[in-house]
Amino acid sequence: MISSDFTQGLLAQGRDSKILLVVVDGLGGLPDPRTGKSELDTARLPNLDALAASGSCGLISPLGPGFTPGSGPAHLALFGYDPWKHQIGRGALSAMGLGLDFRTGDVAARLNFCTVDNQGRVTDRRAGRIPTEKCQELCAKLEAIRIPGIEIAIAAEMEYRAAVVFRGEGLEDELSDSDPQVTGVPPHALEARGKGSARMLEVANAFVDQARQLLAAEQPANMVLIRGFGRYPVLPQMGEVYGLKALAVAGYPMYRGVASAVGMQTVETDWHLDQELEVLRARWAEFDFAYLHVKKTDSAGEDGNFDLKVKLLEEVDQFVPKLLELKPEVFILTGDHSTPSVMRSHSWHPVPLVVHSPVAMPDGLPGFSERHCRAGSLGLIPSTAVMALALAHARRLEKFGA
Amino acid sequence: MISSDFTQGLLAQGRDSKILLVVVDGLGGLPDPRTGKSELDTARLPNLDALAASGSCGLISPLGPGFTPGSGPAHLALFGYDPWKHQIGRGALSAMGLGLDFRTGDVAARLNFCTVDNQGRVTDRRAGRIPTEKCQELCAKLEAIRIPGIEIAIAAEMEYRAAVVFRGEGLEDELSDSDPQVTGVPPHALEARGKGSARMLEVANAFVDQARQLLAAEQPANMVLIRGFGRYPVLPQMGEVYGLKALAVAGYPMYRGVASAVGMQTVETDWHLDQELEVLRARWAEFDFAYLHVKKTDSAGEDGNFDLKVKLLEEVDQFVPKLLELKPEVFILTGDHSTPSVMRSHSWHPVPLVVHSPVAMPDGLPGFSERHCRAGSLGLIPSTAVMALALAHARRLEKFGA
Repeated sequence: MISSDFTQGLLAQGRDSKILLVVVDGLGGLPDPRTGKSELDTARLPNLDALAASGSCGLISPLGPGFTPGSGPAHLALFGYDPWKHQIGRGALSAMGLGLDFRTGDVAARLNFCTVDNQGRVTDRRAGRIPTEKCQELCAKLEAIRIPGIEIAIAAEMEYRAAVVFRGEGLEDELSDSDPQVTGVPPHALEARGKGSARMLEVANAFVDQARQLLAAEQPANMVLIRGFGRYPVLPQMGEVYGLKALAVAGYPMYRGVASAVGMQTVETDWHLDQELEVLRARWAEFDFAYLHVKKTDSAGEDGNFDLKVKLLEEVDQFVPKLLELKPEVFILTGDHSTPSVMRSHSWHPVPLVVHSPVAMPDGLPGFSERHCRAGSLGLIPSTAVMALALAHARRLEKFGA
Repeated sequence: MISSDFTQGLLAQGRDSKILLVVVDGLGGLPDPRTGKSELDTARLPNLDALAASGSCGLISPLGPGFTPGSGPAHLALFGYDPWKHQIGRGALSAMGLGLDFRTGDVAARLNFCTVDNQGRVTDRRAGRIPTEKCQELCAKLEAIRIPGIEIAIAAEMEYRAAVVFRGEGLEDELSDSDPQVTGVPPHALEARGKGSARMLEVANAFVDQARQLLAAEQPANMVLIRGFGRYPVLPQMGEVYGLKALAVAGYPMYRGVASAVGMQTVETDWHLDQELEVLRARWAEFDFAYLHVKKTDSAGEDGNFDLKVKLLEEVDQFVPKLLELKPEVFILTGDHSTPSVMRSHSWHPVPLVVHSPVAMPDGLPGFSERHCRAGSLGLIPSTAVMALALAHARRLEKFGA
């Protein structure tokens, strides 16, 4: 694993080489039993295949053998942060995912609209899975909540789910959940687990009390459960750790959130590759490093849509020459994790990686796939090693020791 | 390395998928100089070769590059326990190996029958390597030892070696050895290294004094040396750590001992594969996980009998289809360590591994051997990663992070 301190002491000065890191979400897959070929095996990828011949390849593992990452840990690992050590709370990830204004010092939490009976006992933890529109309407209602010294922002997620961000002095996040996880009992009383969280407890209790009153006349969503308290993650910043001025181009808010937490500048864009490319082109000159995120491949994998994932990979392949036109000194394409269509979920399987640079060992591989990358010169390495490789190929890492 | 605590927080609920882990002791080898082929290269292994094509392969390292494990650490690593952190004392391993009744709170130690002169100086630390039958006879003699409040169990090992288990209140194991390691001097006085071990010191001294009296008329074995004090190992239990109800099928007592120490249920059986298979079949329905141990391959390697090891590997291969008939969701075959026949000993060389499951990446390798597994998609990984892979392929591990 990279130690940030270590890397920092090794940064080469005066380099203006640029690094472009393309993260194809859920890149890796598994064979379709009908053909014995994975999505990458099946797709026609002339440009990526050419990179696998001229560049260095390998497989990366986000969390080590067997462990399947969520998007948060998977991206932190790619950015060089030990994902077991640097954890981002669920509430914080939700707030990021919804694009809520969420900054250092803020505490986020998840809200579930629920149903309680006239004695306050939870009868449905999901309020009958109210439609998202209803959830938005209820969130608007909760905006009437007033707590002195505290700013509150709320956003609806899907169905009965929402997220809230609290901003104010002295907020810590060591609070238990009110969700009892079962029905027939009242919500749990919130408890401060650290003494620094007394103020947050007061604020959260005030929030829940006012929510109860505001929702009293609603049916079925006459109450909220609150859980997953998490502060805005305080992480080492890429500028300090790597000496890189970094840009994130990601259509989905959550990925901008994670990138922003590690100190990248983010730009709002939608998720279409054309749009992302346009934004990247416009801002490329200002930055040393850009991270570009491709979302739809993961969604296709999660939907079990093998053929769509193949088609989307082919679209990514067609974008590669346009990205190379920017002439980054180092071009890296990989995924945050695998999402095999046959599993309809993220998985633990290691992810193909290609590094293109004038000083990369040309592996001469016949193509870009799980199978071929296994034989690449980079080997099977932790995802946290990618940033060191990026810096090295950009000649931005000094020799260690005399 | 897997942290048990981590894994515990990540266990998927409500799975009934089954895992079968076959450990072929001393599986890995080295080429016979006459042919340039290892035992696995030489053996005809149609069933294992088929698994290497349809499953995922790799190499596992019990202790990291260069370190050769004993059977205890090698098995602990396979079961997911850091073998450097969780050490089982020699005395404890011996007691387990001999099938002595050995439980939490007990302290075991190794006994060596030796020869002392009339001034009590050790003249032969091995008592002229008395035959095992003589050793058994002397152990029976020592059963006359009486220490108030203490139960004692003794069993002969090979030649001059034996093991003893002490059971009673307040026994700790921080005691020095009496074996002086050289001749011409008396046995060392035992010393308590921790103040909690005062009672154990008293007990051990009483044991040695009575043994001296009981053996006084013997020749050459007129004394015992005592060493390697070790408590019954207190290890996290597989049921809690992995949520698995686990069965161990192993013909040799020591392997049942290690399995029992990590919370597996053990069944007495002899070491013949037919017998082990019969026991496994009979109990399979009751368990989520079964570990089946094949011993003889290691013994053949230790004897330097290359051809016998080849033959035994071929026997294992013939058993694979019978094991697969049990339809485990995950079938894993590997070894605890390598025992190259040309070295006549355990070694540090990494050990071939194959994982067979519907969600394993099919590696399409041409065969199952050290050489082929090196090219597998699982890479070269620590043995401690095997359990996480087993749980992942059984879909028993939750995603980490959102």
